[in-house]
Amino acid sequence: MIAGRIAELREEMKKRGIDIYLVPTSDFHESEYVGEYFKARKYMTGFTGSAGTAVITMEEAGLWTDGRYFIQAENELSGTPVKLFRMSEEGVPKITEYVEQKLPQGGCLGFDGRVINAKDGDKYEEIVTKKGGRLQVDEDLVDLIWRDRPSLPAEPAFLLPLEYAGEAAADKLRRVREKMKEQEADVHILTSLYDIAWLLNVRGNDISHVPVVLSFVMLGQEYCNWYVNEKVLNQDLITYLKQEHITVKGYEEIYRDVEALEGGSVLLEKAVVNYRICHSLKQGIKVVDAANPTIDMKAVKNPVELANTVQAHIKDGVAVTKFMYWLKNRIGKEEITEISASDYLEELRRQQEHFLDVSFDTISAYGPNGAMMHYKATEESNAVLKAEGFLLVDSGGHYLEGTTDITRTFALGALSRQQKEYFTAVCRGNLNLADARFLYGCRGTNLDILARGPLWDIDLDYKCGTGHGVGHILNVHEDPNGFRWRIVPERSDSCVLEEGMITTDEPGVYLEGEYGIRTENELICRKGEKNEYGQFMYFENITYAPIDLDAILPEEMSRAEKRRLNQYHRMVYETISPYLTEEEGQWLKEYTREI
Amino acid sequence: MIAGRIAELREEMKKRGIDIYLVPTSDFHESEYVGEYFKARKYMTGFTGSAGTAVITMEEAGLWTDGRYFIQAENELSGTPVKLFRMSEEGVPKITEYVEQKLPQGGCLGFDGRVINAKDGDKYEEIVTKKGGRLQVDEDLVDLIWRDRPSLPAEPAFLLPLEYAGEAAADKLRRVREKMKEQEADVHILTSLYDIAWLLNVRGNDISHVPVVLSFVMLGQEYCNWYVNEKVLNQDLITYLKQEHITVKGYEEIYRDVEALEGGSVLLEKAVVNYRICHSLKQGIKVVDAANPTIDMKAVKNPVELANTVQAHIKDGVAVTKFMYWLKNRIGKEEITEISASDYLEELRRQQEHFLDVSFDTISAYGPNGAMMHYKATEESNAVLKAEGFLLVDSGGHYLEGTTDITRTFALGALSRQQKEYFTAVCRGNLNLADARFLYGCRGTNLDILARGPLWDIDLDYKCGTGHGVGHILNVHEDPNGFRWRIVPERSDSCVLEEGMITTDEPGVYLEGEYGIRTENELICRKGEKNEYGQFMYFENITYAPIDLDAILPEEMSRAEKRRLNQYHRMVYETISPYLTEEEGQWLKEYTREI
Repeated sequence: MIAGRIAELREEMKKRGIDIYLVPTSDFHESEYVGEYFKARKYMTGFTGSAGTAVITMEEAGLWTDGRYFIQAENELSGTPVKLFRMSEEGVPKITEYVEQKLPQGGCLGFDGRVINAKDGDKYEEIVTKKGGRLQVDEDLVDLIWRDRPSLPAEPAFLLPLEYAGEAAADKLRRVREKMKEQEADVHILTSLYDIAWLLNVRGNDISHVPVVLSFVMLGQEYCNWYVNEKVLNQDLITYLKQEHITVKGYEEIYRDVEALEGGSVLLEKAVVNYRICHSLKQGIKVVDAANPTIDMKAVKNPVELANTVQAHIKDGVAVTKFMYWLKNRIGKEEITEISASDYLEELRRQQEHFLDVSFDTISAYGPNGAMMHYKATEESNAVLKAEGFLLVDSGGHYLEGTTDITRTFALGALSRQQKEYFTAVCRGNLNLADARFLYGCRGTNLDILARGPLWDIDLDYKCGTGHGVGHILNVHEDPNGFRWRIVPERSDSCVLEEGMITTDEPGVYLEGEYGIRTENELICRKGEKNEYGQFMYFENITYAPIDLDAILPEEMSRAEKRRLNQYHRMVYETISPYLTEEEGQWLKEYTREI
Repeated sequence: MIAGRIAELREEMKKRGIDIYLVPTSDFHESEYVGEYFKARKYMTGFTGSAGTAVITMEEAGLWTDGRYFIQAENELSGTPVKLFRMSEEGVPKITEYVEQKLPQGGCLGFDGRVINAKDGDKYEEIVTKKGGRLQVDEDLVDLIWRDRPSLPAEPAFLLPLEYAGEAAADKLRRVREKMKEQEADVHILTSLYDIAWLLNVRGNDISHVPVVLSFVMLGQEYCNWYVNEKVLNQDLITYLKQEHITVKGYEEIYRDVEALEGGSVLLEKAVVNYRICHSLKQGIKVVDAANPTIDMKAVKNPVELANTVQAHIKDGVAVTKFMYWLKNRIGKEEITEISASDYLEELRRQQEHFLDVSFDTISAYGPNGAMMHYKATEESNAVLKAEGFLLVDSGGHYLEGTTDITRTFALGALSRQQKEYFTAVCRGNLNLADARFLYGCRGTNLDILARGPLWDIDLDYKCGTGHGVGHILNVHEDPNGFRWRIVPERSDSCVLEEGMITTDEPGVYLEGEYGIRTENELICRKGEKNEYGQFMYFENITYAPIDLDAILPEEMSRAEKRRLNQYHRMVYETISPYLTEEEGQWLKEYTREI
């Protein structure tokens, strides 16, 4: 099947004299997750992970993806002619290097200019120029061969009222316009769906589990154009947009309006805005290539968002705690599978008031499946849980109050000494980081070792960051904050930690073919004492669910670490028990006991 | 006195139409410490610290220095017309900003072009150009008014034999020439005295406690010129230099030879090479402005250097341990002062075989003096030690085997609860960092929190890095390795930690007007296990002297921390006791006992 699709694509390439064609995982907005319409790379290769790019030449079909997906990609690509290129591993060329190697002198490189960002597009332009060749970017070749392609998403949009958003769109627009002035930009083109939703206080459902609205924004000092499919707007929204002086235009009109811009300067982030938009600008227009001002603004949650987020986490903690009670009591007594477990957890979340959606595809991974960081159970892989080993469940919800992301690894029965030792190390790392006090100015790179250290001490590691920023009823992964020891420039998650930022804390152990462990809480960054040394900062732990004591070896923890775990569990009990049945409450008392 | 000198300098400035004159703390080589000849800034301001720049205008005389010296500078400048500018503090202009502010349109900025590096010189050039003014850099105005100025240093140089250097100059030169080829440079101008001494395997005594030889090197693929005062060379060295095909030329000849270079490209580090050298190059010569290749090479100590350094530390540990025994037993029984204590410690070091010199001015600081990070006792400040509080002693030695740097803070009698608590926190930080295991690729920025964390936890900090690289019979402070949480670009001490690098680990507490605590060990970076996660690294602690148990609160330490301290003390006892008298040995057993 995959082989046939690649052959068809090569036919189309041949007709046009294209030597290499790129099929990235991208919509027209550089969203992390994309709607079904945009899953061209999945269609072409069969690889379902959220990150990866296919590169098709006449001789070879390659897929580039990162460490999170090596195991999954290997499985999904087996039996296809697609070769896996493990990004960042020694000896593996970058896509640009590969293209430069393979493109013949005078050759043609093709891609859909709307699904490659302007920064990458410029790089490809450079390579092609060096080779005396050409770019062909005005056609989506996959569209020609993808007969049953889903249509562009057009889900209903809705207003996020001020009591949930915490700041009026007018105030946000004012702040962005100030930044535009500072940067001497007359126009700002904003294409990031998360930033648009935050800025306008609107939400939708155009990406699975990411409540955004497929749209663009063009902003001047005197106007704000929102390019969006009008069908998704309800009467409330239309009234609201009028009040806020936000002009609605068709989704595709952005390209024409960009072409029509005359002179002046445009603020846009080339790493995010698509190549076609950027190259529709007339010569002579100055491009101010800088981060969208909304990036830093939306990362710092306002007091209303923070207070609401805590409420969302309490609801979410109730669901996860009830789930754990159910799991611990039913395992071995009835058939539970990865999927039935995750379905039940979703049901418990849906019972909570103001629940909107899960915030990403639940990872419910038993035994060896837990070693795949981004596993998603399918009908084929769906494991039946036994009363032994670990079930790793990484899940979250969107509520009107906010978004959650939590991972717990549950002991379903007998564990090996090693499993307990590693679980305890992960727990120690998680709580050590959560308990950090640090001076303002620190980045995630300064703190990462607090979580990772207990694993490094025993020659283990996890091949990913320790945590990421969390969007507010937006993408569960959000820039620019995070925890990571090595700065990865293209990830942009190593900013100075600011008061009000929310970051996950999720160390883990992943043993391929054996099992996976991850414990994930979310942390709000808060201001502590200010004195002659500077402004001290600390974290508030806002995730409320037991860390499975059945997998803890108290003798592997220092007194301070035990104190941290006991304090955490006391908080969990006090916060969650009022929402439980009596039996659940009794059980929680036991599972949050002092060790 | 200072006022008079400033008045005289202004006279000379007036004659030449100079509006602002800069007097940095610098020799012609950007050495950190400088010989007496070069202490023009001290002569002009009275401030004796190792870092600081005077800026003299017709109206104002300012001194810029950094956080290490604020307290000292305040003291030393009091009573002079010189105003202290605290670098990096809010609202304090940088020198360049100040110059730009104060320089009148069409004005003249003056400095000696040999004591300002080319990078800074370029910045001043830019400012002056913007103001339509001019630079005057061919005269050393301070020289005109400094009547009893010491002469240029010209101490005897000597060869460091291969059994101590571990790598022949020929091999080092080959490695540097390879780097020149990689960087497409025909000529390399090396002016850093440490790098020259390392490269040629020579040492001298031209900077107090820094055994270098005042000289320059110009290197091509076929030649190596050493510009040095011939008088400092003995017959052995002359024979050696001939064998190694190193051509000796006069110290001042470098300027002529640089002027005479025709075409091609020159590798030099503008932040290190002086402005006059760089601007003597003909137009059309390509300057490759990059770090001296010797920087990374000399930071990674070779196996001979490492093994020898451990021997140097054992000798040094014997001296410090004997000193501690003496101090603990004599305090309260005879008069001991900061200076007499430091003299006695130096005497104990001199008794060790192959001792060359102390590696920097000993900091022997009692009580409130300990709060000044870089205090040097003078006849006026020299405190008499009482049988209470802390004596902080930061000292080190150069031996033929290597260089040491150690700080111990000694309890001389009664301590407050707070003093013990802070001492214990410093000790915990010191040992936590020393015990780190981490993946290759980490920088000091990733690990700094291990040392600083116990202080941050109680809202304390120290306003400096946690540690610095250590030169091998060279400058005790050496780039590019270090421990620091915030990257300070101009400090260049945040490189990836490589096997064989030696870094100090010296957290502290400094309470102005009260006391200071610092515990400093040196750590060799070593390779640990290599597995699927990468290359693990760890540190070998090579400083051998007790950490004063009289100031430790065991109840403030976790079991792991106590284990670390006990292990460290066991190693100290086993390593040092063979070199002690029986009474000293008995005493050491007690002071390295398990807690």
